Amino acid sequence: MAIKRRKISVIGSGFTGATTAMMVAQKELGDVVLVDIPDMEGPTKGKALDMLESTPVQGVDSVISGTSNYEDTKDSDVVVITAGIARKPGMSRDDLVATNAKIMKSVTKEVVKHSPDCYIIVLTNPADAMTYTVYKESGFEKNRVIGQSGVLDSARFRTFIAQELNLSVEDITGFVLGGHGDDMVPLIRYSAAGGVPLSTLISPERLDEIVERTRKGGGEIVSLLGNGSAYYAPAASLTQMVEAILKDKKRVIPTIAYLEGEYGHHDLYLGVPTILGGDGIEKIIELELTDEEKAQLEKSAQSVRNVMDALPTA
Amino acid sequence: MAIKRRKISVIGSGFTGATTAMMVAQKELGDVVLVDIPDMEGPTKGKALDMLESTPVQGVDSVISGTSNYEDTKDSDVVVITAGIARKPGMSRDDLVATNAKIMKSVTKEVVKHSPDCYIIVLTNPADAMTYTVYKESGFEKNRVIGQSGVLDSARFRTFIAQELNLSVEDITGFVLGGHGDDMVPLIRYSAAGGVPLSTLISPERLDEIVERTRKGGGEIVSLLGNGSAYYAPAASLTQMVEAILKDKKRVIPTIAYLEGEYGHHDLYLGVPTILGGDGIEKIIELELTDEEKAQLEKSAQSVRNVMDALPTA
Amino acid sequence: MAIKRRKISVIGSGFTGATTAMMVAQKELGDVVLVDIPDMEGPTKGKALDMLESTPVQGVDSVISGTSNYEDTKDSDVVVITAGIARKPGMSRDDLVATNAKIMKSVTKEVVKHSPDCYIIVLTNPADAMTYTVYKESGFEKNRVIGQSGVLDSARFRTFIAQELNLSVEDITGFVLGGHGDDMVPLIRYSAAGGVPLSTLISPERLDEIVERTRKGGGEIVSLLGNGSAYYAPAASLTQMVEAILKDKKRVIPTIAYLEGEYGHHDLYLGVPTILGGDGIEKIIELELTDEEKAQLEKSAQSVRNVMDALPTA
Amino acid sequence: MAIKRRKISVIGSGFTGATTAMMVAQKELGDVVLVDIPDMEGPTKGKALDMLESTPVQGVDSVISGTSNYEDTKDSDVVVITAGIARKPGMSRDDLVATNAKIMKSVTKEVVKHSPDCYIIVLTNPADAMTYTVYKESGFEKNRVIGQSGVLDSARFRTFIAQELNLSVEDITGFVLGGHGDDMVPLIRYSAAGGVPLSTLISPERLDEIVERTRKGGGEIVSLLGNGSAYYAPAASLTQMVEAILKDKKRVIPTIAYLEGEYGHHDLYLGVPTILGGDGIEKIIELELTDEEKAQLEKSAQSVRNVMDALPTA
Repeated sequence: MAIKRRKISVIGSGFTGATTAMMVAQKELGDVVLVDIPDMEGPTKGKALDMLESTPVQGVDSVISGTSNYEDTKDSDVVVITAGIARKPGMSRDDLVATNAKIMKSVTKEVVKHSPDCYIIVLTNPADAMTYTVYKESGFEKNRVIGQSGVLDSARFRTFIAQELNLSVEDITGFVLGGHGDDMVPLIRYSAAGGVPLSTLISPERLDEIVERTRKGGGEIVSLLGNGSAYYAPAASLTQMVEAILKDKKRVIPTIAYLEGEYGHHDLYLGVPTILGGDGIEKIIELELTDEEKAQLEKSAQSVRNVMDALPTA
Repeated sequence: MAIKRRKISVIGSGFTGATTAMMVAQKELGDVVLVDIPDMEGPTKGKALDMLESTPVQGVDSVISGTSNYEDTKDSDVVVITAGIARKPGMSRDDLVATNAKIMKSVTKEVVKHSPDCYIIVLTNPADAMTYTVYKESGFEKNRVIGQSGVLDSARFRTFIAQELNLSVEDITGFVLGGHGDDMVPLIRYSAAGGVPLSTLISPERLDEIVERTRKGGGEIVSLLGNGSAYYAPAASLTQMVEAILKDKKRVIPTIAYLEGEYGHHDLYLGVPTILGGDGIEKIIELELTDEEKAQLEKSAQSVRNVMDALPTA
Repeated sequence: MAIKRRKISVIGSGFTGATTAMMVAQKELGDVVLVDIPDMEGPTKGKALDMLESTPVQGVDSVISGTSNYEDTKDSDVVVITAGIARKPGMSRDDLVATNAKIMKSVTKEVVKHSPDCYIIVLTNPADAMTYTVYKESGFEKNRVIGQSGVLDSARFRTFIAQELNLSVEDITGFVLGGHGDDMVPLIRYSAAGGVPLSTLISPERLDEIVERTRKGGGEIVSLLGNGSAYYAPAASLTQMVEAILKDKKRVIPTIAYLEGEYGHHDLYLGVPTILGGDGIEKIIELELTDEEKAQLEKSAQSVRNVMDALPTA
Repeated sequence: MAIKRRKISVIGSGFTGATTAMMVAQKELGDVVLVDIPDMEGPTKGKALDMLESTPVQGVDSVISGTSNYEDTKDSDVVVITAGIARKPGMSRDDLVATNAKIMKSVTKEVVKHSPDCYIIVLTNPADAMTYTVYKESGFEKNRVIGQSGVLDSARFRTFIAQELNLSVEDITGFVLGGHGDDMVPLIRYSAAGGVPLSTLISPERLDEIVERTRKGGGEIVSLLGNGSAYYAPAASLTQMVEAILKDKKRVIPTIAYLEGEYGHHDLYLGVPTILGGDGIEKIIELELTDEEKAQLEKSAQSVRNVMDALPTA
């Protein structure tokens, strides 16, 4: 039986989806199918072709193709879902949730039909509720449906720390639980520069400022761009998750995972530390939290539950 | 004297400029400064910050920053110019040339002022005339001002051949002289798959079709996208040129080079095979051309001269 | 079904085998099992452990292990055979052939038993005859048993050309048919620098010298080392072949392939241009040869047949 | 002024030196000169040529050359010293120290003469005393003479932890102070898996065993190999240090640094956490140690002083 390239499908050909496709191809992780709705077929094909035309120069053998036909995603190993709308001015959060949940259901149906054995990574906002929606719709085991959140938040935190200390980003470890924004629970105790605890290197006040900047990291980019939101760091985060699965790397990274009792929650997708490998979320790591951290995580979980109340039933 | 990171400035924070900045950083070639006009300062800073926040996940130490202040480009080793406007409906080609030439002059003045020892790579269309403009304005030696054209065309040609033969893109070599589009002079004789001449692998008719598709490669992307033009493959091409210079790789690649007698032309920037290394264009390779190829190159040169007639004098 | 890492076994833990194991791991192509005879178990485990201890610093997740037990090679995707003895002073060529053929048979039996679906790459000298022996013993389809020869010869040729012209090795293509040494058939016509034919860049006399140096490339290293033979470039060549298969790259590279009529030969393993991908040798490329090249290849084939006469029957 | 490739010289063409040369070239950090004594010129040139012949296949432009003439090291950016003898049976430690110190002096004299602005990394055993010797002989500023020790010990510790927990080596951080072997001071408090403290993941008893195995890590390889000692992980560690300097990465890594009051010591080279960047050791990080750790570090420092007593005066 011949050895076949891995196959990765990315649903949604917007900036994040397209950039993810490019980064996955750059790492030669497999062939990439970029998918969007029929109305967007032209641009989707155009972006894919443009990327493909970069491969001779980049020296990678990854065939990138664009499509609006889910049959082209057949037998994907990993599917990344970035589809969905962004919140528009005047739109209520509940409307956003309802709209994106509907998109998730329709996308998931197609994904599952053509790739019944795949692993799914969900980026679409609000990620906790959307990952939950995909999980329910897919009928997959919980380990095979994974949400992105903490890799990105940690990346931002690490960036700011590296800048503050003028150190290599490679040596900064940072850990973030819970959701984005105000719901983020940064575990400063578990963050370090080359193994050296941050508390010995940065004053508490400055550390607080950096945490606050991290919380508002997405908004900072939005207000700078003026129009649109971050996509480079989100795409890199998704790519790291795809790689962890396809190379069975067993990375210790925060993901949005389905809880069945861990951290005291049931039937909830929440940002927690996990081991991500060839079988998706292979383990949830339960950390001992301080009372303050517990309260923060509780608050984050409550936010997720509030959002989930806006999910359309059935 | 401490060893310092290389510094690359990218002028123009549009899709091609931004993607180039990202790709240069991914290769850890140095720190990257993304520059645009004051009106675009927010998005420029936003894109740069988003990229920077991807570096911990990508594992590279390249500081990417956005600015509208050329002082931040001080002492760049390489400067890539992607600034300029795209041709709009109803705009005459001469208007495009005049506008972009004006932009080139103003950009070059600033670049040269802050980085008198840099190497400049020009992408802005029409690239031959714009490279010429930058060269004249800069006062630099000819080897230090280089235009991009043939790397991209070759990349497209190689992509199509690899697809046709279902082979690794790494093994396809292809060579293109002259300008873009109808002015492209593909040297089929010098193109091969793993060293095997294409003529033994593909029928002449099919090869003609592939050449024709290559000629129209830019337009194919434009019509698929509907709005905008290619940027992934152009950015990868620019990145390869930046790398060739910074790592003194002495790559044999087609670039837009200043001719002083080579191929029978004087005082003209034209797409020809060159050796690109730590001193920019270190050599122009003069190939023996067939009569047909000569005629094609002559036509290409004439096109460039026609465009240059539209350059504003003084 | 969880995604599993690829598995590569390298038989023979001498310099070439060990270096191949390291290079395969550096590319994170999968987990690596280094195998040698029980007498060498200690050093084999020691080298593997030393390599494994380099992985945190190199940032790759590849588990490298050493063993003398073929059960540890179970379900390998690719197996590389470097086992065998080197010719010692006073040893006849026929004795070498007989001894290594015996080793090939015993190794193949074990490899096939534990990895009935694997692809096998053979380096052991004389490679043509040894690949033939492994093929016969394995009972595998011909595409799944591949010998190494031309990648290394081409690499040497490309190195010398790059040095001669002071150009990037990335831009030199070179093609070599037939066997090593005097039996090598360099296809100068199919060799180029960035697509530019070598004949336009180097004088015929100098080119002849470079071809001659390539022919004697193995011997040059042997006489410099004084004791032992080349292993870095051979290991890199093997690694490229492993990668071509595991990533289904469809590279156009010269390998020792089983001929059934191609180039006029039957039931013979000979160095020819092939497409190497996820199904091993997916195709043999038949080039039109000049009369001189034909005569050279014939001579090379005759050499192989002479060696094969020394193979023990049954 | 044309951009030039960086230049790295590696003194000592034994296994560690040669493997370091290969790894530095694989990362395309610059051109590499491998140096050994005139008696070893053949093998040194042979290894270098073999490596060079692997570069076309590996796709890197690094010229690797072998020599016994220090003039060829002229204007190196970084020089790595691996020269020296290993302790032989029956040899007293003091004899080893005296012999290697003599070699260090002679090597340093040549290095400094031809590359007065370089950074020097010392591996030769016993590394603390040898780095001190090179420092004194060179007349260089302290930041420009750096010993290797902790990167390797940390790499081993991380490997064992990754194995124990079946996790990616990329996510294990580990920190080691002091010297090798019994003098190693592992900072368990500062070691983590993906930010999660090891103490929450591994029992104290098991952690003790892993620490003990790390202490004896060099010996474990020696006894497996039977003849010779580790070189893959040491070479990877040296390569990481070379890269940190050449790319000005400002990595937080343990190195053997010259202390002037830090950790209570003066005029002593000792393994401590440092920031390694374009100016060598840019900073020594002073950690708060527990009483036990202080005692261990004191013991380690005393060992170094004992060794230094064996250094030949003048």
